[in-house]
Amino acid sequence: MSFPVPQALRDYARLAEPQLAAFLDAKGAALRGLPVDLSHAHAALRDYVLRGGKRLRGALVLLGHQAAGGRREDVLRPSLGVELLHAYLLIHDDFMDRDEVRRGGPTLHVTLAGAFKNGGPGPGRGAARGPGGESALHLAGSLAILAGSLCEAWALELVLEAQVAPERALAAARHLAPALADVTVGQMLDLAAPQGPELPAAGVLRIEQLKTGSYTFELPLLLGALLAGAAPGLLAALRAYALPLGQAFQIADDLLGVFGAPEVTGKSSANDLREGKRTLLIARALERASPSDAAALRGGLGKPDMSDAEAEALRGILRRSGAEQAARQEAEQLCALAIRALEGGAIPAAIAAELGAIADYTIRRTL
Amino acid sequence: MSFPVPQALRDYARLAEPQLAAFLDAKGAALRGLPVDLSHAHAALRDYVLRGGKRLRGALVLLGHQAAGGRREDVLRPSLGVELLHAYLLIHDDFMDRDEVRRGGPTLHVTLAGAFKNGGPGPGRGAARGPGGESALHLAGSLAILAGSLCEAWALELVLEAQVAPERALAAARHLAPALADVTVGQMLDLAAPQGPELPAAGVLRIEQLKTGSYTFELPLLLGALLAGAAPGLLAALRAYALPLGQAFQIADDLLGVFGAPEVTGKSSANDLREGKRTLLIARALERASPSDAAALRGGLGKPDMSDAEAEALRGILRRSGAEQAARQEAEQLCALAIRALEGGAIPAAIAAELGAIADYTIRRTL
Repeated sequence: MSFPVPQALRDYARLAEPQLAAFLDAKGAALRGLPVDLSHAHAALRDYVLRGGKRLRGALVLLGHQAAGGRREDVLRPSLGVELLHAYLLIHDDFMDRDEVRRGGPTLHVTLAGAFKNGGPGPGRGAARGPGGESALHLAGSLAILAGSLCEAWALELVLEAQVAPERALAAARHLAPALADVTVGQMLDLAAPQGPELPAAGVLRIEQLKTGSYTFELPLLLGALLAGAAPGLLAALRAYALPLGQAFQIADDLLGVFGAPEVTGKSSANDLREGKRTLLIARALERASPSDAAALRGGLGKPDMSDAEAEALRGILRRSGAEQAARQEAEQLCALAIRALEGGAIPAAIAAELGAIADYTIRRTL
Repeated sequence: MSFPVPQALRDYARLAEPQLAAFLDAKGAALRGLPVDLSHAHAALRDYVLRGGKRLRGALVLLGHQAAGGRREDVLRPSLGVELLHAYLLIHDDFMDRDEVRRGGPTLHVTLAGAFKNGGPGPGRGAARGPGGESALHLAGSLAILAGSLCEAWALELVLEAQVAPERALAAARHLAPALADVTVGQMLDLAAPQGPELPAAGVLRIEQLKTGSYTFELPLLLGALLAGAAPGLLAALRAYALPLGQAFQIADDLLGVFGAPEVTGKSSANDLREGKRTLLIARALERASPSDAAALRGGLGKPDMSDAEAEALRGILRRSGAEQAARQEAEQLCALAIRALEGGAIPAAIAAELGAIADYTIRRTL
């Protein structure tokens, strides 16, 4: 059973999709006059960006802006920028994690590698001079990294060009730069973690916060609010809503990754277990499980050829240890905390109602 | 014989080096409280950034700012940002081109890969869980990409936090974002070019302009000037100086790559020929050479095991075709054009004199 998508998200997606497509098309047109044909890379990027996604972050930019009394039309383009920022992070992440599937389709480096393997992306010397095997993969990965960085540059452009007073655009950009650094550090920690000692749950939580939590709720809401010149009280209220909800979102994602139905998540629910992802859920199970279960979990995680039966046995440990139940309760509590932060009066009632619905959706989509 | 480094560059480097080191140390200290040890990656990045370089771009930020009547102290931190932006681009470039040496030392992904091969960067499960071979290289490459992106985020932070009027900081940042997109597109073109038909000289020139020309002179000068609220006349004069000089710089770099003494460039002068880099110099030689020389050049370029004698034979073709001589003349002419742009009166005489010396240095270091 799927929980209905909140109205604010549906409205935003309907508004933003065509504008995002138009923006990418305009950028694609500008690439056409260049001496080397990049149409294939552009088409692959366009498809990746427009291939669904919840558009949660863009919608939150609008809501943050409206909470501060701003007009929707002033912040639509910056909100597209935040969606492109998200695409940038996903593209780099996919490459670094060697993921092959995202949003029910191939990741960008996989699409680009496929093109080179088939003899080059267009007319010309393609097949004859085309790099083979490992070299083709490196080229495809490099082009994917660059396409991601291009999304980041475009995101900056869209945020900086907001048609608001200069102090407001500047305040938003000044919030963005350290947030970008935080996400980057979070990703470095995530990649480097398997080289060090096993992390306790608190360490996993901190990495998840840096890597995803902060830019999923806090960044877009505050960016939107700052573009409307929000007062400190409103910024504090938005932050008090965003922080617990970012954590709840991550816990929900961890649960979805292990217990979610493939038809909802778009990928096998054994994936995270096969990859051996050290989520908060896993860290807590390792802390709570009996010594023999903990050993079985440690030994079983990260087997690329894990059978469905083996995956189900690991799920059994997550349930038995109480980690699954504890995670669901914690997501509920964090969500309740986020909703309580909406009640102080700093956030206008209509916007608070939309944010409340988004908070529910954030955790219900899994439970 | 080496041409002396202009006073403005030497002064800037003396001023900026300790500040850049202090900035990186402060960022390193902030990383120390995190749940995974990143001290090794930070140390490698710090060494890479501080390992020399001309600091040309940072110095140009100061000169652009002073040309517009700004105070040096207001723009010192943004100028460090532009040096970090340069480091970001070099780090990504090194990874994508698989270069192993930069500024007389290992590139960042090479340093990081070495650490993993030796059993992990620190205490902990390192060697036991450390990825082997290809996987270690992917992890090292990913961490290098992230360290580069971190430099980019820090660069943004430093530019946006300039202690000048908000309109000025915003104008500078609005200039920066599309310049970042241009450099990224230039790098995409550069990587994709070998997959397409052989480029004429004009195509190579356009790629070099996007990839390096624009951000080496124009971006830092204009950024500095915009941070001081420069008038349109001054911006136009700085652009008229920067555009031809960016091209001259690139031509000089191409010449250095093939004819430069290894003790000046820090790498073998056969490198560019072994890599088969399609520079403007090569494109022009292919257009001018006799059919048999052009065929020999096409056939000889890009052989990883090229002997010194083979490299010298290719240099002979570059000389015989007149491409070398034409490139030197063109660099001279472009430099003269840049220097002429300093004479319109829009740029204060003292700054114009420094920029003139930098223009001379830009091409003399090779000739």
